Amino acid sequence: MNWKPEIDAAAARIDGHAQVTPVMTSATLWSQPVALKLEQLQHTGSFKTRGAFNTLLSSEVPAAGVVAASGGNHGAAVAYAATRLGHKAQIFVPEIAGPAKIALIEQTGAALTVVPGEYANAAEAAEAHEAETGAMQIHPYDRPATVAGQGTLMREWEAQGLEADTVLIAVGGGGLIAGALAWLQGARKVVGVEPERSRALNAALEAGKPVDVEVAGVAANALGARRIGSICFDLAQDHLGGSVLVSDEAITEAQHALWRAHRLLVEPSGACALAALRSGAYVPAPGERVAVLVCGGNIAPDPLA
Amino acid sequence: MNWKPEIDAAAARIDGHAQVTPVMTSATLWSQPVALKLEQLQHTGSFKTRGAFNTLLSSEVPAAGVVAASGGNHGAAVAYAATRLGHKAQIFVPEIAGPAKIALIEQTGAALTVVPGEYANAAEAAEAHEAETGAMQIHPYDRPATVAGQGTLMREWEAQGLEADTVLIAVGGGGLIAGALAWLQGARKVVGVEPERSRALNAALEAGKPVDVEVAGVAANALGARRIGSICFDLAQDHLGGSVLVSDEAITEAQHALWRAHRLLVEPSGACALAALRSGAYVPAPGERVAVLVCGGNIAPDPLA
Repeated sequence: MNWKPEIDAAAARIDGHAQVTPVMTSATLWSQPVALKLEQLQHTGSFKTRGAFNTLLSSEVPAAGVVAASGGNHGAAVAYAATRLGHKAQIFVPEIAGPAKIALIEQTGAALTVVPGEYANAAEAAEAHEAETGAMQIHPYDRPATVAGQGTLMREWEAQGLEADTVLIAVGGGGLIAGALAWLQGARKVVGVEPERSRALNAALEAGKPVDVEVAGVAANALGARRIGSICFDLAQDHLGGSVLVSDEAITEAQHALWRAHRLLVEPSGACALAALRSGAYVPAPGERVAVLVCGGNIAPDPLA
Repeated sequence: MNWKPEIDAAAARIDGHAQVTPVMTSATLWSQPVALKLEQLQHTGSFKTRGAFNTLLSSEVPAAGVVAASGGNHGAAVAYAATRLGHKAQIFVPEIAGPAKIALIEQTGAALTVVPGEYANAAEAAEAHEAETGAMQIHPYDRPATVAGQGTLMREWEAQGLEADTVLIAVGGGGLIAGALAWLQGARKVVGVEPERSRALNAALEAGKPVDVEVAGVAANALGARRIGSICFDLAQDHLGGSVLVSDEAITEAQHALWRAHRLLVEPSGACALAALRSGAYVPAPGERVAVLVCGGNIAPDPLA
């Protein structure tokens, strides 16, 4: 697939719908300056909004609208994008989505069903809804339109003057990092960071193919994909610069550091990439300039509630 | 005073010490796009760090170090800057500084005394400490070095490509807005925003001279100056484009809006300028492009505690 024109087209499509998110260079989060992109300031608090808008704006959405199953952030993004564009939306989330993400979805006016048990149950409910109503199912990560939408993030970051040899990116199902790999095509080193207890990409690289993993841990409702997307896996085999794992403790430590150093309040997944740097899971070479993508802000409980 | 060279010199002085803070344009905080500068991401969570570094780096600091009285943010900034530069620091805060700001000061390693009662008691204690030890007192706003330091913020924002006819800025003692007025010299319209219950600048403009006001309300520990600084008052008479008041309810509403729309968690003072726009206290003319300065993030209680 020729990704660059796809991502250019996605960027044109979502212009004015997704938020251009700010960048900064932190002097205090690590021993060397670290470039940050604050994608948690995106509409609905995560990068998922990019892929959702790109998918909807490049599809013929049926009158029955759209349906999505999600740990929370994808559902909030689909709900937001669909309702903004005047489509019906039905979102299914498992209980572990948690109150912040559930509230976000409710605020959009989309129909929401909280499904007991694990994510797989929400996915089943979404499939049943699709079969019954003819609504269009929006996959959370393993579709070209989703990956191209997420790819606009790295495109935007480069246009904002990113100076980095290496970019650390948290990985769940792989849509975000796939977008970055698709855009960069090896031009910078991209390192995937996963929780030790949700390591779908890491396990796939080890096995030589996507395999099922157990998922758990503090970032599970955002990064807890059971199997890495095939688009991501293929791009990773061509272009990935590294795959590292971080503990829940390292994620929580990085989350606290972002708040302490810069009053950036993020959910655990949003601090996962930084955790690789602060914990030493990823050790840059001398002089290697590092960038960290901050990708999700939907922390629960609501700090202002 | 010829402010522009002073602010240029301050910017050179604090380069590498203060954080360059990011900017963004929000599409959802108001009916029209609003330019934001996220100065709450500054070291110690407020713009005060700029003035503190500029003051210390342009002074001969005695061996006894520095002393400051503060509602919290100024004290945290002085504590941070002084300890980073290797000086002793003694900070006095009143109880209303609150746990977030007290914790910030403690983290720097500076000596901290929480003084019972109101701010005036902390100021008295700081004066006694100065007389006793020979430590250098760092005023929170009404000194040229402080104003020039805060002026670097607007200089930086313009260098980041600010597109705005009008800039809304929260006012306490007036150091921040004085810096903006000193830098802009009327080149853009600057509007001061104060809480109804802490209106030192508004009252001074009404009286034709700085006068004492009562202070109260949700932003009192940051914006609760009893009297506007004379430097600010003089600059305001020459260059201020407007003075508006906002209710505590409007401040809290804007604080929630920043969290809801962009996962920006700020203290009440940090949302004060936005409150003027959202509440209608300031109504721009058709086509008038508005910028809002977000200035403080030290919310209590700690959302991660």
